[in-house]
Amino acid sequence: MDTLPDVQACSPEYPINLTRVGLTGVKKLVKVLREEDRPIVLISNFEVFVDLPSNRKGANLSRNFEVIDEVLEVVVNEPVYEIEELCGEIARRVLSKHEYATRAEVKMKSEYVVKRRSPATHITCQEVVDIFAEAVAKAGHLRKVVGAKVVGMTACPCAQEIMRDLVREELEKLNLSPEEVYGLAARLPVATHNQRGRGIISVEVRDRRCVSLEKIISIIEESMSAKVYGLLKRPDEAMVVARAHENPKFVEDCVRTMAKKVVESFEDLPDDAVISLKQINEESIHQHNAFAERTATMGELRAELGLGV
Amino acid sequence: MDTLPDVQACSPEYPINLTRVGLTGVKKLVKVLREEDRPIVLISNFEVFVDLPSNRKGANLSRNFEVIDEVLEVVVNEPVYEIEELCGEIARRVLSKHEYATRAEVKMKSEYVVKRRSPATHITCQEVVDIFAEAVAKAGHLRKVVGAKVVGMTACPCAQEIMRDLVREELEKLNLSPEEVYGLAARLPVATHNQRGRGIISVEVRDRRCVSLEKIISIIEESMSAKVYGLLKRPDEAMVVARAHENPKFVEDCVRTMAKKVVESFEDLPDDAVISLKQINEESIHQHNAFAERTATMGELRAELGLGV
Amino acid sequence: MDTLPDVQACSPEYPINLTRVGLTGVKKLVKVLREEDRPIVLISNFEVFVDLPSNRKGANLSRNFEVIDEVLEVVVNEPVYEIEELCGEIARRVLSKHEYATRAEVKMKSEYVVKRRSPATHITCQEVVDIFAEAVAKAGHLRKVVGAKVVGMTACPCAQEIMRDLVREELEKLNLSPEEVYGLAARLPVATHNQRGRGIISVEVRDRRCVSLEKIISIIEESMSAKVYGLLKRPDEAMVVARAHENPKFVEDCVRTMAKKVVESFEDLPDDAVISLKQINEESIHQHNAFAERTATMGELRAELGLGV
Amino acid sequence: MDTLPDVQACSPEYPINLTRVGLTGVKKLVKVLREEDRPIVLISNFEVFVDLPSNRKGANLSRNFEVIDEVLEVVVNEPVYEIEELCGEIARRVLSKHEYATRAEVKMKSEYVVKRRSPATHITCQEVVDIFAEAVAKAGHLRKVVGAKVVGMTACPCAQEIMRDLVREELEKLNLSPEEVYGLAARLPVATHNQRGRGIISVEVRDRRCVSLEKIISIIEESMSAKVYGLLKRPDEAMVVARAHENPKFVEDCVRTMAKKVVESFEDLPDDAVISLKQINEESIHQHNAFAERTATMGELRAELGLGV
Repeated sequence: MDTLPDVQACSPEYPINLTRVGLTGVKKLVKVLREEDRPIVLISNFEVFVDLPSNRKGANLSRNFEVIDEVLEVVVNEPVYEIEELCGEIARRVLSKHEYATRAEVKMKSEYVVKRRSPATHITCQEVVDIFAEAVAKAGHLRKVVGAKVVGMTACPCAQEIMRDLVREELEKLNLSPEEVYGLAARLPVATHNQRGRGIISVEVRDRRCVSLEKIISIIEESMSAKVYGLLKRPDEAMVVARAHENPKFVEDCVRTMAKKVVESFEDLPDDAVISLKQINEESIHQHNAFAERTATMGELRAELGLGV
Repeated sequence: MDTLPDVQACSPEYPINLTRVGLTGVKKLVKVLREEDRPIVLISNFEVFVDLPSNRKGANLSRNFEVIDEVLEVVVNEPVYEIEELCGEIARRVLSKHEYATRAEVKMKSEYVVKRRSPATHITCQEVVDIFAEAVAKAGHLRKVVGAKVVGMTACPCAQEIMRDLVREELEKLNLSPEEVYGLAARLPVATHNQRGRGIISVEVRDRRCVSLEKIISIIEESMSAKVYGLLKRPDEAMVVARAHENPKFVEDCVRTMAKKVVESFEDLPDDAVISLKQINEESIHQHNAFAERTATMGELRAELGLGV
Repeated sequence: MDTLPDVQACSPEYPINLTRVGLTGVKKLVKVLREEDRPIVLISNFEVFVDLPSNRKGANLSRNFEVIDEVLEVVVNEPVYEIEELCGEIARRVLSKHEYATRAEVKMKSEYVVKRRSPATHITCQEVVDIFAEAVAKAGHLRKVVGAKVVGMTACPCAQEIMRDLVREELEKLNLSPEEVYGLAARLPVATHNQRGRGIISVEVRDRRCVSLEKIISIIEESMSAKVYGLLKRPDEAMVVARAHENPKFVEDCVRTMAKKVVESFEDLPDDAVISLKQINEESIHQHNAFAERTATMGELRAELGLGV
Repeated sequence: MDTLPDVQACSPEYPINLTRVGLTGVKKLVKVLREEDRPIVLISNFEVFVDLPSNRKGANLSRNFEVIDEVLEVVVNEPVYEIEELCGEIARRVLSKHEYATRAEVKMKSEYVVKRRSPATHITCQEVVDIFAEAVAKAGHLRKVVGAKVVGMTACPCAQEIMRDLVREELEKLNLSPEEVYGLAARLPVATHNQRGRGIISVEVRDRRCVSLEKIISIIEESMSAKVYGLLKRPDEAMVVARAHENPKFVEDCVRTMAKKVVESFEDLPDDAVISLKQINEESIHQHNAFAERTATMGELRAELGLGV
């Protein structure tokens, strides 16, 4: 079988260029470094694509499985500090192995473990968050993106204001001054609907020193009404509920807070770096979700916040 | 090709009996009757199985696709009043077409549309709920099950009690009597974590007059802290939030309330009918869910509630 | 509660514009007309978004649920001939109800039933396919897209050529001429790996007469190695397997064949209409999938095929 | 807040016993030992339940998060050789911490990496398989289960026989003896439909020396027509396709082969150990799947194979 036919190198029946040809659902072990600890090895899900010119039948995926795998193996031997660097390295090598391609694209999804302390009793627990990275390599050019999707808690400001009206009506029946009524209603933990929210940030990375995944995860968490925790003792639970109700947020507020924090936290990112911010609230009063999104350059966000140069 | 080989009828390599052989993921249009309206035709997902003796290689699924399909087509021409009847009829016919089988099993999942009026402004809207049915046919015996999975809202009683303590501390700073403090704290809409809950009931049906899917759906909805709605104007939203906070429920409470209501609503079900009750709360303060379940006969539930004969 | 606070109309904490604010996971009944039949009513999944200026806190989703629902109800009362028209109408009305928005976007996914006859015995059966549509409304402008995702069978040409080499080696041991060996090897149903493929086409629609969903579905099916069927008697199964092995296709071939057929079938589509073509093969020899994609304008596809003006 | 109310310890509104109360979707890092290597740390998904008597409102999940987490942390500090031992240890400790419970149940799902060499070129690659374990602790009794779900390739014997008939018809046109025709048709790699299959085995474990997860994974793989691989060079791909077509298997055959291999491989398992064997074939000629299942004791399987005592 030395002379196996190279069907992929033939001409295709119809001379159509293809934007992306590749593999999806490729699972690989990836070592992820955590500062305080030995590296942990996580199973990550990869997609790898190249473009294909109109004169070539196939992208030789069956032969190139080997290349992709080899690249992953090589890169994976070194613990990875930044997953977008990993995707970038794979994209560069995949492009160099496909002489007919002008563009290689790599996407990766994984899970990541964040340590937290509960707010009142300070017990340590783990939270699992979703992380992802992408890279697109073209001749002499590499574009990289890194991001995360994190669960938190959101409490609705609108329903809370309506409920606060009801609280004031109740307080007005007592022998209290208007100031006392207003002040008390503002201080009490007034009910509203609250729910799991999912915040997603992706950031275009030029220089690995500018952006850290830990910062992205913190920004998402801190842009909702409260963080969620795997383990809460009773005083912790009270603090989480109180915190969420003192800090109610619409789905729109979460995205705007993320925008503000991204601008503040990633000062060194250039004005043309693209940022995507999303929030999905799984509203407890509906079966459907509330959604908000902003996609913009850092320059646009800076300008809107009055922080542009 | 008249004399195509009947590979399925051969002896298998190893004479092992099989408990279930069949098809999963079969999608079919099913007409569902709604009282007030013309029938609606929903795409339903079926699983169909028979057992297989140790001396037969295959269950002839490739030939029996036809039988299953034919049975569905025939039955489907008449609007179905009860989906467990549909599964029962398919199971009976599948069993009769497989001379070598002693047992046929059919499962079906679909969606169902329930009309609701919002609680304050009485706007009509639709809610989609998941429904399911099963039937097992053996010689001279047919066992049928029907059920539903419905989304509602649950509010945590434990966190609310802790928050109510904080409310009382706040009220005690005013010039109020202890009775006034206690009474007011009990009346106010005090915050807690609330979330989407999913209740699931399945009921073994002997006689189609005993059990209706509408009743099952109502029981699930009414066993949580509040119903959810697709459309809520502001006064509706206030009523839903108020209702949930006046009626906080643990995941355990939801299952016990379902048990109580099932016993009350299905008086004609025999003592040996099997009931399964489940509740999953997608807690807003955690990434994980709270879960409770009871599986029992009607007789056992009646005895525990002191309602047995 | 006449004077409920309008929290949404307030100024937000941070003056960031939002690209999309809305609802996801909204399930609604939609009547779909089929030519030969009474309309069928399917549960469809909607997403509805508007943009939001930097000076407004919330998109009033809680108030606008009503608008969205009302729009759906009105439109839904008439059977829908084209789902992209439905999305277009919703997008137009949503935009007109949000005085502060400059853009409304609607997405819809549903299932659709296609009737087929098995290839040899001509038994009728149903296939369920996924359909989708989108519309974006801006001042004086409406962009609409319609598409489908359909399952079929693909057989690998590369592995088949390798296996055909083995067949030739085997035939060469007989007393046959080289021409007989070559001719016979070319005619025999030589093994290869085959699998479920999923083809996806989306087409930008300007004029409802140009594009039909049935044509899109047919193009996807006919661009793979063979169609799949719910019900196949033994001679049908032989024809499907034979057909797939006479017509092996790489994932790239499927996309190029779709491109060719789209250009041929939608002659009236303008050159600037955007077309997206994707194919995913769930390869039987791997856990991962093969993927190919082309996104282009009709004009680009016509030019590559030498059919441009 | 020293005197926080213990709402869970109250009497419930309705005195209904609960079969299972607990948590689902709990993600935790678990170290898994592999013989040749340092331990790998995988994110695993846990469910933990206890039963609840009719006189107790809640299972104190909010307090017991801590217990469950603590138990996991303690156990997790030692690398785990057997995941059913891990579940058993958690179940034992959870039961001891809930004085009111008579039963604790723990379920765990994870992914596991298996190394393979491609069949012709012997390249090393990784395959990711799904693994799971369960344990139920009652007073003085512990029941443990371990299992895996593995993807492989199945080729249909029935369609291949029909295609082989067509091959024979073609060969009969040549000047060959009937013996030559029959022999050649039997040797050639004749086409059939083939697809991804998923085999699932779960085994009740009494003594950790009896059952290894590696053996379970091997049995599942070797019970299908061929193994699948992440990386196949062209000669490997030919061997996989040839192997699958020399070894066609119905969904029923896969389960029976698993039964045979389980009986042979786990000689030390007692006759009353419960075994569950399932196979799902994602048939390439249909949208739906073929399914087969056997649930039995080791004693029953031994008797059917004539290997009982």
